[in-house]
Amino acid sequence: MRVDVAPGVEKALREFVLPEELGFGAVDAPVMFSAEWRLGQWGPASLLPHGPIGIAPGARALHYGELVFEGLKAYRVSRAGPMAAGARCDQQPPNLFRPDQNFRRLQLSARRLSMPEVPEELFFAGLESIIRACADIIPRRSGQSLYLRPFLFGTESGYLLRNSHTFRFMVIANPVEAYASGSPSVAIERRDVRAASGGVGAAKTSANYAASLRGSSAAVAGGHAVALWLDAAEHRYVQELSGMNFFAVIDGDLHTPELDTAILPGVTRDSLIQLARHQGFEVHERRMDIDELLNQISSGRCQEIFACGTGAIVMPISALADTDARLFRPPQTNVIAARLREDLLAIQERRVPDPFGWVRVVS
Amino acid sequence: MRVDVAPGVEKALREFVLPEELGFGAVDAPVMFSAEWRLGQWGPASLLPHGPIGIAPGARALHYGELVFEGLKAYRVSRAGPMAAGARCDQQPPNLFRPDQNFRRLQLSARRLSMPEVPEELFFAGLESIIRACADIIPRRSGQSLYLRPFLFGTESGYLLRNSHTFRFMVIANPVEAYASGSPSVAIERRDVRAASGGVGAAKTSANYAASLRGSSAAVAGGHAVALWLDAAEHRYVQELSGMNFFAVIDGDLHTPELDTAILPGVTRDSLIQLARHQGFEVHERRMDIDELLNQISSGRCQEIFACGTGAIVMPISALADTDARLFRPPQTNVIAARLREDLLAIQERRVPDPFGWVRVVS
Repeated sequence: MRVDVAPGVEKALREFVLPEELGFGAVDAPVMFSAEWRLGQWGPASLLPHGPIGIAPGARALHYGELVFEGLKAYRVSRAGPMAAGARCDQQPPNLFRPDQNFRRLQLSARRLSMPEVPEELFFAGLESIIRACADIIPRRSGQSLYLRPFLFGTESGYLLRNSHTFRFMVIANPVEAYASGSPSVAIERRDVRAASGGVGAAKTSANYAASLRGSSAAVAGGHAVALWLDAAEHRYVQELSGMNFFAVIDGDLHTPELDTAILPGVTRDSLIQLARHQGFEVHERRMDIDELLNQISSGRCQEIFACGTGAIVMPISALADTDARLFRPPQTNVIAARLREDLLAIQERRVPDPFGWVRVVS
Repeated sequence: MRVDVAPGVEKALREFVLPEELGFGAVDAPVMFSAEWRLGQWGPASLLPHGPIGIAPGARALHYGELVFEGLKAYRVSRAGPMAAGARCDQQPPNLFRPDQNFRRLQLSARRLSMPEVPEELFFAGLESIIRACADIIPRRSGQSLYLRPFLFGTESGYLLRNSHTFRFMVIANPVEAYASGSPSVAIERRDVRAASGGVGAAKTSANYAASLRGSSAAVAGGHAVALWLDAAEHRYVQELSGMNFFAVIDGDLHTPELDTAILPGVTRDSLIQLARHQGFEVHERRMDIDELLNQISSGRCQEIFACGTGAIVMPISALADTDARLFRPPQTNVIAARLREDLLAIQERRVPDPFGWVRVVS
């Protein structure tokens, strides 16, 4: 499809300098993608210089949380080893990882909020026009990437509790490091609830993060990386970490909470399950009782715990901190997590063959 | 406190013409109020012409639902009857209704999302500077008002799950009719969940509305005004209608769901409870089982049902529609509701003495 390139894009790209320190979201790519929906029709798509957007102060995206989003990465890691005669490192084209899964989930999220769907062509035009424009500034070290954030939001003002009649689909991007480093502890949140069955927990939508802010900020203030959320009905079953899914290694098998309407179906979660099974692991998707898990950590049956997500890839967890400040520390940290992380990342970065057909090259 | 008046405000006010048809949020007042928070400090406050605001496309208000808001009305209804010699109708100053309650609730909402609090002086400067600027365009018929929407949101970009370090407090306004008219039916929502105990249901924040969009849109598509939400854990106890609280008249007494962390503590709800008790009603705040309520409607013990909120004041409900399309219609509609509505509105519009000290005149 045709994407208009706005005045200023070329200059923004030319003037952009990739900083040494990237963080995760601290550096904005110089361009963004935008298309608007009105009366059932998508208008022209544009590549624009990155910058503030104009929004009605009463827009439903703000007041009614009418926004769904995705997060995925474009990789362009320099290959070591011999290259074809005459080839330059720069000629390695960027690639995405399972973007079909992000596309599919964006539709499910939009349906949960009864928003219109983004056409597949528009979704990929957004991703690929940014990747092509930014190909030279995708950072090249292993673990680095261009994080892409597609989002769809309701732009109509008004207080009647219904969906907007006008929407905007955008993609913004950030050159990033991996989301987290080290092996942090994670705080069990036993009071606040992130999402309930029947709510919007399985949708990638702003509401879930709003509910997580207090618990997450308290976790960080307590010296932990993030909060671990439990189910809304009984405050008993492990859900996820807001943006990351949870795994435990118990008696040598992998265990992860089974999906329901309150848990985000992570693309990294699904990839790790497939990869681990491919490597001979037993993987159990089941309800995980937090107190049973803590007992298994104490007894050493639970050997290791970790989280995963697009940003962090795999994040080893050194300990779970309960609300009474007791720390539950499994006997090992970042052994199986490190192996899975490296094996997954090697596929994502095209450093090894991809037996699953997950990689999509953007030529 | 000092409020800067931006260029263009005078012109916007001069050129504004109050339309005959107002709706509820369809007409924007010509001015808005804004102040920004950075590094723990509030910057200068300004009155601006109403228009789109610039926001970073990755702002946490959008992606993480970091936004809390309030809704209240300024009244300036023309008085019938004799006036003091030389007085003009225009000289009746506008008034607010229990704005201290909205201020208090905004703080509670901000705390639930671990956002900074808006100082009382700033909150009222926002309301009053708009009311004063718009005094001549507050519509004057009973039931009409200037709806005020104060809101606080996180303006910082970034994907780390924590609060913004920069915020903006704004007030926008709309000349309005009452939110709803007639005696609509309401659809019981038995699948989707609006809010769970421990979630953000008691905060006035965008997340709750996001979760309500599908159910509310489905209710409207089914010919009903709105959805009635049940509790997250058992799908059994009545919560509210997203933006309105629920009341039933059973054996002559008023019954309404008791507040918990999943129900918004409505200012109109609280006012009606006080007003009804003042008039001799027994009012019961308790858990209300939906199936028990439907039986009481069928047997005629539940005589009447209605909802209330700032927008609608009191909205009579003709029937509850269950998911199997059965309609439960109480024997009477809008008898007690109409009386409470008129008595409350008369106080709000200063047509009768205010025995509760609820009215605050903006001189």
